[in-house]
Amino acid sequence: LSSVDRRRMVFPCHHHLEDYEQAAKSLLKALFIREKYSKLAYHRFPRTTAQFLRSAENAKYLNSVLLFLINFVPSNHCADICPCPHKGEDPYSMNDIPENLDFELKMRDGIIYVYDNAEALSKNRPRCLPYPDLETFAMDLSHVLAMIADGPTKTYCHRRLNFLGSKFYLHEMLNEMAELKELKGVPHRDFYNVRKVDTHIHAAACMNQKHLLTFIQSTYKTDAERVVLDKAGQRLTLKQVFNNLNMDPYDLTVDSLDVHAGRQTFHRFDKFNSKYNPVGASELREIYLKTDNHIKGEYFARLIKEVAHDLEESKYQHAEPRLSIYGRSPEEWESLSHWFIQQKVHSPNMRWIIQVPRIYDIFKSRKLIANFAKMLENIFLPLFEATVNPQKHKELHVFLKYVTGFDSVDDESKHSDHMFSYKSPKPEQWTTDDNPPYSYYLFHMYANIMVLNNLRKERGLSTFQFRPHCGEAGSITHLVSAFLTADNISHGLNLKKSPVLQYLYYLAQVPIAMSPLSNNSLFLEYSKNPLREFLHKGLCVSLSTDDPMQFHYTKEALMEEYAIAAQLWKLSTCDLCEIARNSVLQSGLSHQEKKHFLGADYLKDGPEGNDIRRTNVAQIRMAYRHETLCNELSFLVDAVKSEVLGSQPE
Amino acid sequence: LSSVDRRRMVFPCHHHLEDYEQAAKSLLKALFIREKYSKLAYHRFPRTTAQFLRSAENAKYLNSVLLFLINFVPSNHCADICPCPHKGEDPYSMNDIPENLDFELKMRDGIIYVYDNAEALSKNRPRCLPYPDLETFAMDLSHVLAMIADGPTKTYCHRRLNFLGSKFYLHEMLNEMAELKELKGVPHRDFYNVRKVDTHIHAAACMNQKHLLTFIQSTYKTDAERVVLDKAGQRLTLKQVFNNLNMDPYDLTVDSLDVHAGRQTFHRFDKFNSKYNPVGASELREIYLKTDNHIKGEYFARLIKEVAHDLEESKYQHAEPRLSIYGRSPEEWESLSHWFIQQKVHSPNMRWIIQVPRIYDIFKSRKLIANFAKMLENIFLPLFEATVNPQKHKELHVFLKYVTGFDSVDDESKHSDHMFSYKSPKPEQWTTDDNPPYSYYLFHMYANIMVLNNLRKERGLSTFQFRPHCGEAGSITHLVSAFLTADNISHGLNLKKSPVLQYLYYLAQVPIAMSPLSNNSLFLEYSKNPLREFLHKGLCVSLSTDDPMQFHYTKEALMEEYAIAAQLWKLSTCDLCEIARNSVLQSGLSHQEKKHFLGADYLKDGPEGNDIRRTNVAQIRMAYRHETLCNELSFLVDAVKSEVLGSQPE
Repeated sequence: LSSVDRRRMVFPCHHHLEDYEQAAKSLLKALFIREKYSKLAYHRFPRTTAQFLRSAENAKYLNSVLLFLINFVPSNHCADICPCPHKGEDPYSMNDIPENLDFELKMRDGIIYVYDNAEALSKNRPRCLPYPDLETFAMDLSHVLAMIADGPTKTYCHRRLNFLGSKFYLHEMLNEMAELKELKGVPHRDFYNVRKVDTHIHAAACMNQKHLLTFIQSTYKTDAERVVLDKAGQRLTLKQVFNNLNMDPYDLTVDSLDVHAGRQTFHRFDKFNSKYNPVGASELREIYLKTDNHIKGEYFARLIKEVAHDLEESKYQHAEPRLSIYGRSPEEWESLSHWFIQQKVHSPNMRWIIQVPRIYDIFKSRKLIANFAKMLENIFLPLFEATVNPQKHKELHVFLKYVTGFDSVDDESKHSDHMFSYKSPKPEQWTTDDNPPYSYYLFHMYANIMVLNNLRKERGLSTFQFRPHCGEAGSITHLVSAFLTADNISHGLNLKKSPVLQYLYYLAQVPIAMSPLSNNSLFLEYSKNPLREFLHKGLCVSLSTDDPMQFHYTKEALMEEYAIAAQLWKLSTCDLCEIARNSVLQSGLSHQEKKHFLGADYLKDGPEGNDIRRTNVAQIRMAYRHETLCNELSFLVDAVKSEVLGSQPE
Repeated sequence: LSSVDRRRMVFPCHHHLEDYEQAAKSLLKALFIREKYSKLAYHRFPRTTAQFLRSAENAKYLNSVLLFLINFVPSNHCADICPCPHKGEDPYSMNDIPENLDFELKMRDGIIYVYDNAEALSKNRPRCLPYPDLETFAMDLSHVLAMIADGPTKTYCHRRLNFLGSKFYLHEMLNEMAELKELKGVPHRDFYNVRKVDTHIHAAACMNQKHLLTFIQSTYKTDAERVVLDKAGQRLTLKQVFNNLNMDPYDLTVDSLDVHAGRQTFHRFDKFNSKYNPVGASELREIYLKTDNHIKGEYFARLIKEVAHDLEESKYQHAEPRLSIYGRSPEEWESLSHWFIQQKVHSPNMRWIIQVPRIYDIFKSRKLIANFAKMLENIFLPLFEATVNPQKHKELHVFLKYVTGFDSVDDESKHSDHMFSYKSPKPEQWTTDDNPPYSYYLFHMYANIMVLNNLRKERGLSTFQFRPHCGEAGSITHLVSAFLTADNISHGLNLKKSPVLQYLYYLAQVPIAMSPLSNNSLFLEYSKNPLREFLHKGLCVSLSTDDPMQFHYTKEALMEEYAIAAQLWKLSTCDLCEIARNSVLQSGLSHQEKKHFLGADYLKDGPEGNDIRRTNVAQIRMAYRHETLCNELSFLVDAVKSEVLGSQPE
């Protein structure tokens, strides 16, 4: 088909043709924007999409569009740093820690700036690193915000998405048996022994309810007389704690433990959060699920290590648990990394994500912090310091080897009155008791991670991905902020509501960790979950558990998640293995590990990049996905390349 | 409320009142009929329903209805025989086997008759046991068949069922938190440690696909050179078998094993059946999933024992696997019991059900049997012989201690041209190649089990329950046959389609083992499964796996079944524990075990019969169920008691 014929297939009459070109321009611009922010932060951007963008750049007209985009050389992402120890190496070794530098650090407008020395600081001449510019970001954000409401673009994306759905349906009818035949021919590899990563799971709920219960009972057997709590100076033994609660741990049940989400939690995120307190008692949460308590987080570490042990036993399952940094005080990082090293929490089957709850308003109302910048400083300054002076922060330096990203978490359905723009108060000026809006949080987290990553890359250290919760509930604009700032997201349910964003997330292959069982308890009934539809259209979705303690019943939470999806949506083995492959791609596992789990050429797109002997994903499926994506992208590029032709009546 | 007011609530105008009385009469008569057949076969019938029937009997009018019902004294079912060994006892002990009797046995009209001696046989004077009468049975059957199509009865049942649904909804709204509070107050008991019985599971598919795969690989490691197959005289080692299949077991995967149901099996029971052949090779089915093969069923026994071991480890899970008796030859029973004893297959967490496939037509067309009576004789005569002369059949005698019932299995959606009636050919005359219809199978199985049970009861031996597959697909008349003949059924999906039958199954509290994951792969999408609705209305439903090999993904198939139901239907803990309690009630576990698992008074109805410390079912729920059932039954009894009043204008 010639490109004109192709366009005719999409828009049969001339009037629509102009709309199509306008939509294509907008979509390409949005992709350029995401590419820019991705590259700046050492986030990932798909090669295929990037190649099409390169070819579109040559189209003259785009110059105007791209004027305000920073020019940059795309970095090579395959040669990433793998700080994880080999088998037999001591994962907590403090040897080979880089030297300190005499760099200076200072926060300005909520972003940490790096200075080569005190003199540069005094002259306010920051080191030559990319620093984000709020005004540009606000313009980029408003471009995407405007286009998701633009009629012709909506029509275009809606039609393309419908087309993708129908096309997959046809693909399935035609190739289902052929895919299955391919898989049957793969020796020794099936759904059970392909690698799966639980891409979204909170450490404090990574065990199931029964596991937590048994653990509590076992500690009581051995440690009843141990002092476990220091409550405002009053030291309490485990026995005393349970006496005060009028409770014999032997009699404890999952019912009285009450950490499982039920019908009561649907659309009640507030109730859900309080479920983290076993028996409704914050003392037990303090003792069992905290890293920084009287017993130095020992119980929590042991619980996590039991979960890790099961993963290691299973061999093929990995997890990326979230640990909290709140930004309440600058000591949190030292404390967390001390816990991690002392309790030896590392597992080869786990990588760590730091979750930052969006609870400035709580700290502010309790007068723990003066403004929003202080919270950002507490979160990020220690990381810059550990990067600049690792010898001074050895434990944090070692811990950061195993941290692969940041998450931003809280109830998205809470409405904010403030509209983020370049006129918004700077973080230092954000002194009201109100919480800043979602976009404000995301920009400032992204900005600091971006600068930090560039600094770390310079030093040959590992970088971090920004992986916020996004689109679980609330405004669809959250998904716009994340499209610019996030490497990948958790949930993404609200992509259902915006065809433009859904199509953009498809074109940019933004990975989405979905947790339909969690959604089923909180925000969306299982049968209405869009995962199956997203998967079929070709979005890069993975399956994750979110909170096994709250949602799952069996000992194998991730398998339960896969099993239910497979049963309810009648997913084929190829579907399941595609999801598993996506989860490895999305994860923060190292390049070396991904090569091992997916095949040496996993960075290549299409069937070339797939080693079916490792992934159990049919090459027919890989080819279908690749051709389909190329087809969608070429439609867009064709539109801008032939703009002059297209705007004249044919 | 007076009974008149009550009736007004159901039928507001006079015209309907007559209908109501007619419906009540029909329903009561159907219950009398079921009670009769239940008592005759030592099946169970709920006490509450029986009490209401006793009070209805006093109503004069019913005499005419009951004329043709056999008068019998309801037997006491609580003092049942527990042949299972205590801890430490040898379960295979051949001591204490009762003496032989010189009874004679002879099949007549497809039913085995017992004679005190040769003389009685020659004079055709059977021993005084109840023998079923086909003509009476046919009349009873046609009564229930007629009433399920009767308009007024349908209206009445439909309204009562809707009422039951709405009433439960109200109960839930009002008492959900109170039920939960009750459960939280129960020490040491929660959903994880209440007893659950997998009430419907086929032994040949009781392991999951991954388990079977690992087992095959492990046998190959140790037994490659072992002769495992004798194919028409050609003896093959395991290695040769796999060589012939062009396959290295190490390379085998769940994909190539291909025993899992998929999208391809929906509405294709034929395809489903062939899934029992690993790698599509009947050789592997023969080697690994048969009791009577060259290796004397060793592998199959080991597989089952591994599953049993997991159940014993879990402590709270039990299963009732189905083993096949085909009726092809009279030696099957000796062979099966020999396998059982020699391979030591007994587990305290398992009780056995004998499944009889309805495949007369296959044996007939292969000329293996001459008529249907021969098949029945092959199935039942050995059991009568082992009961009369246990010293001659020691292994079978011991095996039968652990057999608690019979199942009738096959694809119910296959249509039969023959309409069962008292004019149908007797089994000896059934010589066509066509398969007899479902009802014909059921009556003849019931008839033999009934006589057998009475004979065994006389001898102080255990009795058997008839527990056919019923209502999975096909005609709703299957559910009528089972209403008369079955102690309890598996599936029951088609109760959806008949309000009268659904209401009867409710009133008679006929236990129904439901397997929504199995249905989802074969006959009915999960979201359309009526389990939740049945449970809420108060039908006695349990959850079962059917075929873990074909349907389940995780290591804990029964927990997977519960987890998915809990998640998808948002079942409360009380709902789940009610289902688990139902499963124990439905099961063939002994009176002693049920007392241990459910509480000493479990045979009493209502909250009295519930020991919440063992079942974790709220007393509020138990009271609700009991009051609701009493209410429904009293409506019916009131109608016939006040018939004279009701038939005159008020």
